[in-house]
Amino acid sequence: MAGFVEELMPREKAIAFTAESLGFPWQTDRGKISLAGNGTGRLLNTVKAPEDAPPYTRSTRDGYALRSADTFGAGPGAPAFLRIVGEVPMGSLPEFTLGPGECAVIHTGGILPGEADAVLMAEDADTAGSWIEARSAVQRGENLLRAGEEFSRGSVLLPRGTKIDWRTAGLLSMAGADTPEVPRLRIILLSTGDEIVPSDRKDLPPGKFRDVNSPILSYLLRKEGYESSFSGIIPDRPEALKTALSKALSEGDVIILSGGSSVSVRDYCSSLLSSLPSPGLLVRGILMSPGKPTLIAGMKEEKKLVLGLPGHPFSCFVTAWTVLIPLLSALIWGEVMEPWRRLLLPLGGPLFGHTGMEEFIPCTFSGGKALPSPIQSSFSKALYRADGLFHLPPSCETLRSGEEAEVWLW
Amino acid sequence: MAGFVEELMPREKAIAFTAESLGFPWQTDRGKISLAGNGTGRLLNTVKAPEDAPPYTRSTRDGYALRSADTFGAGPGAPAFLRIVGEVPMGSLPEFTLGPGECAVIHTGGILPGEADAVLMAEDADTAGSWIEARSAVQRGENLLRAGEEFSRGSVLLPRGTKIDWRTAGLLSMAGADTPEVPRLRIILLSTGDEIVPSDRKDLPPGKFRDVNSPILSYLLRKEGYESSFSGIIPDRPEALKTALSKALSEGDVIILSGGSSVSVRDYCSSLLSSLPSPGLLVRGILMSPGKPTLIAGMKEEKKLVLGLPGHPFSCFVTAWTVLIPLLSALIWGEVMEPWRRLLLPLGGPLFGHTGMEEFIPCTFSGGKALPSPIQSSFSKALYRADGLFHLPPSCETLRSGEEAEVWLW
Repeated sequence: MAGFVEELMPREKAIAFTAESLGFPWQTDRGKISLAGNGTGRLLNTVKAPEDAPPYTRSTRDGYALRSADTFGAGPGAPAFLRIVGEVPMGSLPEFTLGPGECAVIHTGGILPGEADAVLMAEDADTAGSWIEARSAVQRGENLLRAGEEFSRGSVLLPRGTKIDWRTAGLLSMAGADTPEVPRLRIILLSTGDEIVPSDRKDLPPGKFRDVNSPILSYLLRKEGYESSFSGIIPDRPEALKTALSKALSEGDVIILSGGSSVSVRDYCSSLLSSLPSPGLLVRGILMSPGKPTLIAGMKEEKKLVLGLPGHPFSCFVTAWTVLIPLLSALIWGEVMEPWRRLLLPLGGPLFGHTGMEEFIPCTFSGGKALPSPIQSSFSKALYRADGLFHLPPSCETLRSGEEAEVWLW
Repeated sequence: MAGFVEELMPREKAIAFTAESLGFPWQTDRGKISLAGNGTGRLLNTVKAPEDAPPYTRSTRDGYALRSADTFGAGPGAPAFLRIVGEVPMGSLPEFTLGPGECAVIHTGGILPGEADAVLMAEDADTAGSWIEARSAVQRGENLLRAGEEFSRGSVLLPRGTKIDWRTAGLLSMAGADTPEVPRLRIILLSTGDEIVPSDRKDLPPGKFRDVNSPILSYLLRKEGYESSFSGIIPDRPEALKTALSKALSEGDVIILSGGSSVSVRDYCSSLLSSLPSPGLLVRGILMSPGKPTLIAGMKEEKKLVLGLPGHPFSCFVTAWTVLIPLLSALIWGEVMEPWRRLLLPLGGPLFGHTGMEEFIPCTFSGGKALPSPIQSSFSKALYRADGLFHLPPSCETLRSGEEAEVWLW
């Protein structure tokens, strides 16, 4: 029961306390992922550039490679005349060097010939036989990308925790880093509750509910860069939970329980987590709404993290996004990374807050403004079109229409 | 050459003109996707609710199911007394009905017994043996979710074009729609250029570039809900392009060419697209920056769409996101859907625009403000941390720091 806490803990403190008590970061498995497969959203370990980019100085325009000094003072009324001595072949090194007053036809991406230090855009020149009239002066370095200007060999191309997406897939491909290293974490999802049946159950018996939290968690984890596996639904009996947890602990690094909305289930869940090896139960409730009944436990020696998330789908999502995801980055890299982007937006309607607790309310954009969508009981209507969450710090009470509120974008 | 256009076309007009000329929507293949697999980001056809949700009226709180009239006027100083006649079992229908002055213990999610019309929260009651003291009045309907309140059988659960993600995966699971229908489009990517080598090429020969546009397009398409396949890199010869395009047209619905930055390549690409069966080349340049050299062509009878996107990675991305993606939704559903969310944000620095053309500039959030990141030649640095694009309409010139600019969020 080391680290056992009697009171609700603020969210950020709960994350920091867990990270410290469990000695994050932990050494985790790692593997390579191929960009050619579906790496969407996977988080990367630090990627270092395997080579200089570009390897040679090249043109960023169609035009003429030249020595910039030769265009000094050139203008529409006083063109500079240069002789075309060749054309830079696409896809290979030019085999010639420019002398004074000479230039070469070059295409976007072409490698600069020796002694050239700038490119004149084609539209700024008129040609006459093997001569051009440069109607504009160019500066040294103009219209070209210098060797190593994008990045140099060994430098950090992408910092750890960056996601694979269309932006980074292009960059990784360009750099010749198409099989980057990713951390591998075994995350196991368990749902609890006598009233829960599997998501794919067709005929719903009276009083039963299909498992909603496992699909939400699985898709949320994937969005934030993690794969997970679902290990089933546990009935509301202490022995069943104990057996399932023990099996999950033998197979996974991180175990996520969700459900158990009734007080009795929460009680035996919390007493089971208290009985884990040191430090056991660390956080028994978080000072946030929704998400109050969140439990966090762990085993430092064995390197296991266990979370008990609330049963209500919206609460389950909010705690997973704002507590679990930052915890996972702390576990892997020793750094709490926030998956959201913060924005201050003018409110399109009033936002009712309650002092003393960090609050999260779904937010939808409309006409450039941010509108709150109260969740109440209906998960489906408020959330599926929401663009993010309003974040109300504990000190924040009701905000009026037109005032600015902080939004965390997903 | 029907529909051939001599001038640069505004972007929205180019989309509308293409959709009209090709007779969108086209009948496309469809299939089922299982949520248990990785359906992240896939676009859904219209999903109708297969059943009422919830099927029975149920409690949203732990407390006491009762007849609200029995608590009329109750308050802390004047509690109402009700007799506990049972407990609603979780996961099944209660087998009893409440009489006047009676209540039943109920848990969150429990089905209301007959004649009960509200739930009193546990914290608003004191118990004394088989009686409770209700310290608060409750309204009819309070703390419960009525049968069919979330959605009714046959109603639209999710409109077409909605993506599968953590929000919708939960809703689809709840509704018993875990194998929803998705459109299937065969999209083929082709890169062009003698200077381009495959993304996975390790040692880069001088003057060559690894293919960046195919990974960008593949990951962007996936982000926006579409799978694609890559059919290789075509050398800069008209015959090679003709052969590759003809093969791609026999295999795919949508062919995307990218690259061909040199004027000559663009010329023979545009003459090849002009020679396609009716209507052939539709758009020969778009009034946008970047993205001007974009080509759009199609075959109405054969139901084929062909796009030629610019070779510069940023231009390629911008045209894919703002032209191709809206065109795909028009192709499938006859409706131009925008994948971006629009926001008006105060500028953290000046934004330099040029009148007469729709412009897109990468935008990064910093301290709640939006900052422009000029692209210039370096794709890698400006883009991988960008949060969206500034959208400057043709009439917009330079904006000063502190002024509001429109941002399109991805």
